Amino acid sequence: HTAAVKLPSLPTEFVGTAMGDTIGLVIANVDPLLHEKMKLDSRYRSIGILGGRVGAGPQIMAADEAVKATNTEVVAIELPRDTKGGAGHGSLIIFGAEEVSDARRAVEVALQELSRTFGDVYVNDAGHLEFQYTARASHALEKAFGAPLGRAFGLIVGAPAAIGVVCCDTAIKAAEVQVVGYASPASGTSFTNEAILFMSGDSGAVRQALIAAREVGITLLATMGEKPQSLTKPYI
Amino acid sequence: HTAAVKLPSLPTEFVGTAMGDTIGLVIANVDPLLHEKMKLDSRYRSIGILGGRVGAGPQIMAADEAVKATNTEVVAIELPRDTKGGAGHGSLIIFGAEEVSDARRAVEVALQELSRTFGDVYVNDAGHLEFQYTARASHALEKAFGAPLGRAFGLIVGAPAAIGVVCCDTAIKAAEVQVVGYASPASGTSFTNEAILFMSGDSGAVRQALIAAREVGITLLATMGEKPQSLTKPYI
Amino acid sequence: HTAAVKLPSLPTEFVGTAMGDTIGLVIANVDPLLHEKMKLDSRYRSIGILGGRVGAGPQIMAADEAVKATNTEVVAIELPRDTKGGAGHGSLIIFGAEEVSDARRAVEVALQELSRTFGDVYVNDAGHLEFQYTARASHALEKAFGAPLGRAFGLIVGAPAAIGVVCCDTAIKAAEVQVVGYASPASGTSFTNEAILFMSGDSGAVRQALIAAREVGITLLATMGEKPQSLTKPYI
Repeated sequence: HTAAVKLPSLPTEFVGTAMGDTIGLVIANVDPLLHEKMKLDSRYRSIGILGGRVGAGPQIMAADEAVKATNTEVVAIELPRDTKGGAGHGSLIIFGAEEVSDARRAVEVALQELSRTFGDVYVNDAGHLEFQYTARASHALEKAFGAPLGRAFGLIVGAPAAIGVVCCDTAIKAAEVQVVGYASPASGTSFTNEAILFMSGDSGAVRQALIAAREVGITLLATMGEKPQSLTKPYI
Repeated sequence: HTAAVKLPSLPTEFVGTAMGDTIGLVIANVDPLLHEKMKLDSRYRSIGILGGRVGAGPQIMAADEAVKATNTEVVAIELPRDTKGGAGHGSLIIFGAEEVSDARRAVEVALQELSRTFGDVYVNDAGHLEFQYTARASHALEKAFGAPLGRAFGLIVGAPAAIGVVCCDTAIKAAEVQVVGYASPASGTSFTNEAILFMSGDSGAVRQALIAAREVGITLLATMGEKPQSLTKPYI
Repeated sequence: HTAAVKLPSLPTEFVGTAMGDTIGLVIANVDPLLHEKMKLDSRYRSIGILGGRVGAGPQIMAADEAVKATNTEVVAIELPRDTKGGAGHGSLIIFGAEEVSDARRAVEVALQELSRTFGDVYVNDAGHLEFQYTARASHALEKAFGAPLGRAFGLIVGAPAAIGVVCCDTAIKAAEVQVVGYASPASGTSFTNEAILFMSGDSGAVRQALIAAREVGITLLATMGEKPQSLTKPYI
């Protein structure tokens, strides 16, 4: 005789959730008024939406895999100052697609990638470190960071930014990489407490630079609190 | 034989406090040097000050009622990135008045309105949603959001921004409203993790759009954590 | 027969840590590629790095003592929006030096100063207040705030910004000081919830203005929560 609790059905826009307080959504046919206000590319009436409170790098790396695997384009990447009181960014990534099934597939792929792309994110109470690597950068990394297409790409983030600066210097000295960009609290970030390096180049060199930076970063951040722990499982 | 504890008397500037870690203050005669640095309108030597750590929409809606009810003008609205680790804004709102009694009255009205204007703010650990409605927008909403004066006005906020995008789309599709503006992490916000819609139009249409967005927003945010709860009592 | 745990040795870049989640580091010879990306002055190949999650004023005041005491220059001051969920800034300060020993000494001096410069920082759950004083401003204060060199300088910060506005007004009315600058959430800060005043002038006047602002600030912030407490020991 227990009454059945009626749960509200999920809207058709819902795709899924993942770590980093991330949610994946689609809109099959964006209202033209909103489409214009969002300044979306007019070719795409369907969009996929990937957004999280914690992290931008993991979501952008995941989106890069998603555009490789689907018939979509990354049309917007916006970086709130977030991480729920932490030192970094949150994220809002928009995929454009001609068909909603493609947009949904891109969001699904990206959500699935997140447990991997959070693998070289190391956190303690004082800050965080992030290292990302791909053997072949695609359009999400080009759009977000100016990564040369089809080449190995690496990303280094250190917070507080002071530690990030040493990580960046260590990486560049460790291997012959091309420095694609550098960001810091006052330039290229949304006022996060991070120093960030974007690197391209030979696959082995990029990995070597990342591994050197990771070692020094973990040791330095550990001086400010507990030993920083990977949020999932390191992949680099 | 217990010694009386002498409490420091409150400065004459103090008016009161309210939810959202909000404080209301007045200055009867702003020092000319500060007046100039704050770029205040030279007509007003008295100011009322309404500022909170958590929330901008509730305080701006409250200020709109205050300017309707008093002989004051909203001369500045500034939006820090705050909410004490949350995804949104704090607020700093300055009322200008010729007489300090008017400035004080405006701050009092605004403080009293806040429990209502926090009524359609829904929060869980993953984010927040905010819906605001007025049958007749006044000068605070015009200054803050470009709301057409004297017409019904609605405001939708969704955080993380991914959810906000779907709320905005849902609202516009639900009723014939005029889209006054759209804001997102990289444009029109102080890097909050929010997507925001400003709507004007027929009173019934604006309400219908808000109610549709509220339903989808609460359902989506609930997928990321607990069911979001109103901070006070819904009024829309 | 217990196995010795091998601790990783600290990198040569490490100098020390201090309150405010602050770390001090040096790089003896910044990689030329990074040097260029950071837009550092080409005269300095060695840098000292002082960065914290919590606070910018205390670190900048400490850096000002460090440049007085060493053969270094402050070449960059960047202000993330941080304080770990609080209302204010974090900091990234770079000292340039021709010799790494000078850079290291500057960082050491700054780290040692921090317990003093956090002395007139008062915090409760609702916000914070900060007061800083020096009898003689040097190059860090000139670079950060436009402080006239060699004169007494004072800094007032109030958060939430509403309280800061009243503190600034109180200070200017309390003594004949020169207003060097004013900052608020939308102007001169990284979207913090602070109002900030920079003052110069006669030593006695600057102190008198600071003490008046401190009294009103502590009383006002106490209306929003517990009585704000000094983080160490007041020095003004």
